[in-house]
Amino acid sequence: VPVLAKDIAEPFPTVTLDTNAYEAAKLLAGRRLPGLIVIDAEQHPVAILPGSQVLNFAIPRYVQDDPRLAQVYDERAADELCAKLETRTVREVLPAKELRELEVVDGRATVMEVAAVMARQHSPVIAVIEKERVIGAITVSHLLNHILPQR
Amino acid sequence: VPVLAKDIAEPFPTVTLDTNAYEAAKLLAGRRLPGLIVIDAEQHPVAILPGSQVLNFAIPRYVQDDPRLAQVYDERAADELCAKLETRTVREVLPAKELRELEVVDGRATVMEVAAVMARQHSPVIAVIEKERVIGAITVSHLLNHILPQR
Repeated sequence: VPVLAKDIAEPFPTVTLDTNAYEAAKLLAGRRLPGLIVIDAEQHPVAILPGSQVLNFAIPRYVQDDPRLAQVYDERAADELCAKLETRTVREVLPAKELRELEVVDGRATVMEVAAVMARQHSPVIAVIEKERVIGAITVSHLLNHILPQR
Repeated sequence: VPVLAKDIAEPFPTVTLDTNAYEAAKLLAGRRLPGLIVIDAEQHPVAILPGSQVLNFAIPRYVQDDPRLAQVYDERAADELCAKLETRTVREVLPAKELRELEVVDGRATVMEVAAVMARQHSPVIAVIEKERVIGAITVSHLLNHILPQR
């Protein structure tokens, strides 16, 4: 019997498009995750929100272009960053591009199917769905854990 | 006193360009990491090896293009994947593009500088160097953990 995606999917925190961006950032920080799964009002997955995107949104372009500028206003920068996130939702932080690119696998997909999707998408995490709802996620390291020992 | 990169850098497993690709994959699987830092013979960081790249290298293109093909040869596929990795080095698995794109920060960079670099690079992890050698790494969630509670 082949191992299926639903067998190895792990609980993964989700946020909605209307979740406050600061709350999303705290979830990323607290759970030590590289990203969050974003779902819509019907619990359908619509995107992955990478932690780096939260920073990309919150940090002014001119500081990104010359990170040394961040040195001179360190504490104020952190305050401004948080303030900017607190007034925004996940929807506003996500680039439109991300909303179209989410790849999901069905719970009945085999681990090798999951590996193929992950490889093609260069994605460190894939959402697993059953009946259009997110039941968990599979990270690349978790997947490798299941593929490699078979040898 | 501002918090510096060296203060929050965490130990992070490294591999060299000559590390066996199968050993690198096992390290990714065992440590539950999204990627590894690749160093050269002088311990200079040269790239991040994402776990998805290991899959991208090992899984044939025609399976990536139609993941349903993976269903029909599940166990053989896992064996072939491991066999392919065992005969290769990290150098062979890394695309040339990745070798040029590694961003590092100096241990004396402030956390806001690290955030700015991470934001620009859309990277979930940044290597921290002192005297050109890797002393650890900072993940995006670890960084958010240090920025957010300041408010």
